[in-house]
Amino acid sequence: MYIKKQRLLTPGPTPLLPQALHAMMGSDMHHRTEDFRKVYKSVLNGLKETMQTQNDVIVLVGSGSAAMEAAIQNCFSVGEEVLVCTAGKFGERWTALTKGFGLKPTVIEQPYGGAVTPAQVAAAFEANPNFRAVFIQASETSTGAAHDIEGIAKVIRNYDALFVIDAITGLGTMPLKIDEWGLDIVIGGSQKAFMIPPGLAFLSISDRAWKRMETSNIARFYFDLRRERKNAVNGESAWTPAVSLLLAMDAALKYIRDLGMDNLIKNAQLLARATRAAATALGLELLSGNNPGGSVTAICAPPGMDSSLIVKDFRNRFGSIIANGQGSMKGQIFRIAHLGYFDFGDLFAMVAELEIILAANGYPVQFGTGVAAVQNVYAEAALAKELAKEPVAV
Amino acid sequence: MYIKKQRLLTPGPTPLLPQALHAMMGSDMHHRTEDFRKVYKSVLNGLKETMQTQNDVIVLVGSGSAAMEAAIQNCFSVGEEVLVCTAGKFGERWTALTKGFGLKPTVIEQPYGGAVTPAQVAAAFEANPNFRAVFIQASETSTGAAHDIEGIAKVIRNYDALFVIDAITGLGTMPLKIDEWGLDIVIGGSQKAFMIPPGLAFLSISDRAWKRMETSNIARFYFDLRRERKNAVNGESAWTPAVSLLLAMDAALKYIRDLGMDNLIKNAQLLARATRAAATALGLELLSGNNPGGSVTAICAPPGMDSSLIVKDFRNRFGSIIANGQGSMKGQIFRIAHLGYFDFGDLFAMVAELEIILAANGYPVQFGTGVAAVQNVYAEAALAKELAKEPVAV
Repeated sequence: MYIKKQRLLTPGPTPLLPQALHAMMGSDMHHRTEDFRKVYKSVLNGLKETMQTQNDVIVLVGSGSAAMEAAIQNCFSVGEEVLVCTAGKFGERWTALTKGFGLKPTVIEQPYGGAVTPAQVAAAFEANPNFRAVFIQASETSTGAAHDIEGIAKVIRNYDALFVIDAITGLGTMPLKIDEWGLDIVIGGSQKAFMIPPGLAFLSISDRAWKRMETSNIARFYFDLRRERKNAVNGESAWTPAVSLLLAMDAALKYIRDLGMDNLIKNAQLLARATRAAATALGLELLSGNNPGGSVTAICAPPGMDSSLIVKDFRNRFGSIIANGQGSMKGQIFRIAHLGYFDFGDLFAMVAELEIILAANGYPVQFGTGVAAVQNVYAEAALAKELAKEPVAV
Repeated sequence: MYIKKQRLLTPGPTPLLPQALHAMMGSDMHHRTEDFRKVYKSVLNGLKETMQTQNDVIVLVGSGSAAMEAAIQNCFSVGEEVLVCTAGKFGERWTALTKGFGLKPTVIEQPYGGAVTPAQVAAAFEANPNFRAVFIQASETSTGAAHDIEGIAKVIRNYDALFVIDAITGLGTMPLKIDEWGLDIVIGGSQKAFMIPPGLAFLSISDRAWKRMETSNIARFYFDLRRERKNAVNGESAWTPAVSLLLAMDAALKYIRDLGMDNLIKNAQLLARATRAAATALGLELLSGNNPGGSVTAICAPPGMDSSLIVKDFRNRFGSIIANGQGSMKGQIFRIAHLGYFDFGDLFAMVAELEIILAANGYPVQFGTGVAAVQNVYAEAALAKELAKEPVAV
């Protein structure tokens, strides 16, 4: 028995921002009051600002999947043909959701670790120009891969199709120029780069998407986005909001604005780069080496080693909670997260612990090798002034 | 600008136990109620249990220095001759306190980094058998050195002298057998191995010490220990207690009892051993290499480098708050703490960060060297089953 701090280091829920957690203590507040309306408006404005869009942003009490469902319920009609791009467990969720609500999805599927290309989307539209929408992930959380959202957006803008993006782990980990690229619906969740507990989903909605809602024929009530928009003008939610989470979100958005959304993205990408360097230095394969994202890095367990062992050992030896593979990748990979409130201190510890775990399970490791790779990425970045405003000699 | 988590890694205040912090939310409670009396009794019993003594333990609202003052005010009379053992800033505090209250201290002084030996104490008593007390630190926080409390106790028991021990950073980092060794007053503070914020001090008091209070002639009111003892029987404090801190302490004592006080001590000593190994691997000198304690490790800055630079760089580059030298050691040493809620994850990050900081300031470092030394200590300890109940192959 020794001290093992429980460290939540998964790609969602992510580590909590202390000041956001503390803000939840102010939850002794009624939601139909001027005090709370101020909070609600501040959150909506803060989300628009951090998402860097002029589109409306709507907040829902629910997980990210709630906003995925809301996008389908509000903007589509039964029987419409849509294109789903999938390369992992969350891509598969779009397939299940679109089918579940009576849409007719055509699916472009890439293997886990891959990414759908703009050329594939273009070919699909050439074969059928009538797709009413394209559904995709910005970052596929199950593999860490990033899709080329900008490239695919360019293709889609030639057609009358909505571009609906699950950016639940994409926001805050990669550039997403919603207005410039014409991204119609961009979905986020509270427990990702926004550093607070699960329970809030949000989505930005373009004028094109709002217009679709006028003719959509799918039944909806709780997730009626137009109703939410109407209420939001007055700082109100349609239904009882999750007060504690909104207070937390307000605090987190302040932190993110102070840090700068661009810096939040750079931070995640730098930690991702350092993680890839560590994995390579340790002789481990990356699952999504060709299209790595900044949210999470999926690393293949050494041949013959079940990745579940690695995940368990992180918890049992060090109290660190990291993610296993999902779906068909369970036992094959483990995932080191970077999105939101992660820093080099977290990564140094994770990599040092990983080295011990690998060695303990029979994989040859020269202690310190992976950590040194992370240190070198830090040092190069510091030299390149990515990190420090003043030149720093490292 | 990038994410730097503020990590409090000093030898006091130490990192906070989350469940203790959360318990403070229950502070909406009056201290003269049965509910609170239960908490107060539970804390007093918990302190006796973790301090492993049958002596009374008294809690004061104050810092550790308050309990040092209380020991002097309650047990001594103006003009009495006492022996002070000092090898650092906190030893010097005993000199100042005893003088301040009109006692006549003889001082055995060792340089910073050293420790007073039982032989020196024996020699002092041979020269003057009339000392009414010996004052010492168990662990000298300013240098990380540990005094040989057991050895010195053996000497003192031949005389009619109280043994008064500032164990503020000694408790939870080294064995202190209060009853077996005959330690008359043992002083602790909340913000050390007890993992909660500053504001509570406590002391165990032997029958010999209680007896002294009957004749002591120093004025006292707020720190009247006999008054506190009388009230404590009913679960009450003499004056308004620090409710939030007592709730936190109650939660922390539960954690420590679950972990086991012996394991808490082993944890600190193991981290201290690993830190010494890392410093040595990096070619750095230890200040108290001959008598290292488990509370904190003082490492000398490389020749020509001001340790203040290292401390500042920890904060500026990584958000980590570590301790500089105190008194004459300022600028000479920096201190890596281990007492209380510290784990290997903390140490991996601190050592990786230290390596970068040293390199950035011109000291040659092979990245990963210090971390590997820590990993090796972990691996050896795991092999030796110090850490795991089951044999673990590392």
